[in-house]
Amino acid sequence: MLIINRLNQIEAKTIICGAVHKANELGIPMCISVVDESGNLIAFERMDGGKVHSVTISQDKAFTAASARKGTHEFNQACIPVHENNLFGIHTALGGRMCIVGGGLPIVSNGKVVGGIGVSSGSPAQDLGCAQAGVDAFTHNYN
Amino acid sequence: MLIINRLNQIEAKTIICGAVHKANELGIPMCISVVDESGNLIAFERMDGGKVHSVTISQDKAFTAASARKGTHEFNQACIPVHENNLFGIHTALGGRMCIVGGGLPIVSNGKVVGGIGVSSGSPAQDLGCAQAGVDAFTHNYN
Amino acid sequence: MLIINRLNQIEAKTIICGAVHKANELGIPMCISVVDESGNLIAFERMDGGKVHSVTISQDKAFTAASARKGTHEFNQACIPVHENNLFGIHTALGGRMCIVGGGLPIVSNGKVVGGIGVSSGSPAQDLGCAQAGVDAFTHNYN
Amino acid sequence: MLIINRLNQIEAKTIICGAVHKANELGIPMCISVVDESGNLIAFERMDGGKVHSVTISQDKAFTAASARKGTHEFNQACIPVHENNLFGIHTALGGRMCIVGGGLPIVSNGKVVGGIGVSSGSPAQDLGCAQAGVDAFTHNYN
Repeated sequence: MLIINRLNQIEAKTIICGAVHKANELGIPMCISVVDESGNLIAFERMDGGKVHSVTISQDKAFTAASARKGTHEFNQACIPVHENNLFGIHTALGGRMCIVGGGLPIVSNGKVVGGIGVSSGSPAQDLGCAQAGVDAFTHNYN
Repeated sequence: MLIINRLNQIEAKTIICGAVHKANELGIPMCISVVDESGNLIAFERMDGGKVHSVTISQDKAFTAASARKGTHEFNQACIPVHENNLFGIHTALGGRMCIVGGGLPIVSNGKVVGGIGVSSGSPAQDLGCAQAGVDAFTHNYN
Repeated sequence: MLIINRLNQIEAKTIICGAVHKANELGIPMCISVVDESGNLIAFERMDGGKVHSVTISQDKAFTAASARKGTHEFNQACIPVHENNLFGIHTALGGRMCIVGGGLPIVSNGKVVGGIGVSSGSPAQDLGCAQAGVDAFTHNYN
Repeated sequence: MLIINRLNQIEAKTIICGAVHKANELGIPMCISVVDESGNLIAFERMDGGKVHSVTISQDKAFTAASARKGTHEFNQACIPVHENNLFGIHTALGGRMCIVGGGLPIVSNGKVVGGIGVSSGSPAQDLGCAQAGVDAFTHNYN
């Protein structure tokens, strides 16, 4: 039997809190998704004014980061089609659910991925900043 | 110009709070979704132990209730194929996103639908009970 | 943090072995899927001659049983549209991925669902028989 | 009447064995799919720790390789948008099921494609290495 560690609801809320705080600093209402280690949604908040398409994209960023165990922005650079690494095209997999736009990060505890966060409604850099703030809130409170 | 009333994030959290309180009474960890008047997700919580398929079904219940402006359980009885009302089959619309299983309710303010709640992981009756508790929390606090 | 128990590969192979043995007794080549506790595929075997549509259906049965924590045949009876339990219509949820045809069973260890098995290519009763044989192989070897 | 040669279950298991052996050498738990000459799944193994998104991507790589009768990495370079071969865009076909990321190879016997293997969870080069090891195991044992 495998023993798996998974974010609980309180931890997920803490992560969203951190991302919301950063979004308020930026003045951009965000959609924020937190998933478990298998990519399934645990918690979601669309801040007042968050964009409709970001409901899905934030979930897909969180899914991709948790499953691939790396930031979605790392995929983004590796997928530039001139690179000869055979990775271009991953962004259309799973009906486009694989999201390579910056703003998704894995949540790591004791070296294991226990979940993921995805943020969407700003620029990729702004989304990534909020996702990182979510990760930092987790690390500060639980690691 | 149309003026639309739409749930905000604090109201959505209040609604989820009401549903969570009821779910804890029942001892059943639920997935709870709140959508706006257009059916787009505002807030979501998967209580620790909530079922994976309920992530989507709770969203679909909330979407259906907000968009159709009635409880999903009302659809259910009307869809029984012996009824001669030509409604049978609505449950496969939108790729199955129209959900006719009990547990989705519209959120109404001043006679207008301003959002919806969908609950899933228990029986339809238990899900409906938690959805109603969410509606009641809204009514108690804001109406 | 939540601590989750999940089937490993050797356990999944044991479960498939039990189902294959029963399928050979019945003389029906089956498609057999084993998923983890989150419904994601771990192992799959299409016995020589297994049906093509069963590739997907066996996966969906395993997913449904693991996520709903009960046999798909239990859903089947509860979904008969004359029943006034508001459950009719669940079978079209998730784009039809919720499978209510007999042949899916959860895998339980120490009272917790750790995975699921789904079998397809025969009648629902035959599929269920093979799924049960898979569960029995797990119980006999690991519980 | 057409006479079709198709991988059987024992051959599929041999192919997976070869890929697993290579994955263990690399220290990367992989998802490995084997399909028949029509692209339909015969056998699948998610090694303990294999990634969730790779469940689908490995199947799509195997499907693409068997159907297109060439390695998915060959598609990858041909799809780079600067190439004037009108192939760019094939990666979004079939809802993204056409996978042009390296790691899918056809299985060939007597000059005919009899199936395909798809591997996912590492880099495209690592995935391709494991897929090749699966092909080699087949060739060594059956050709």
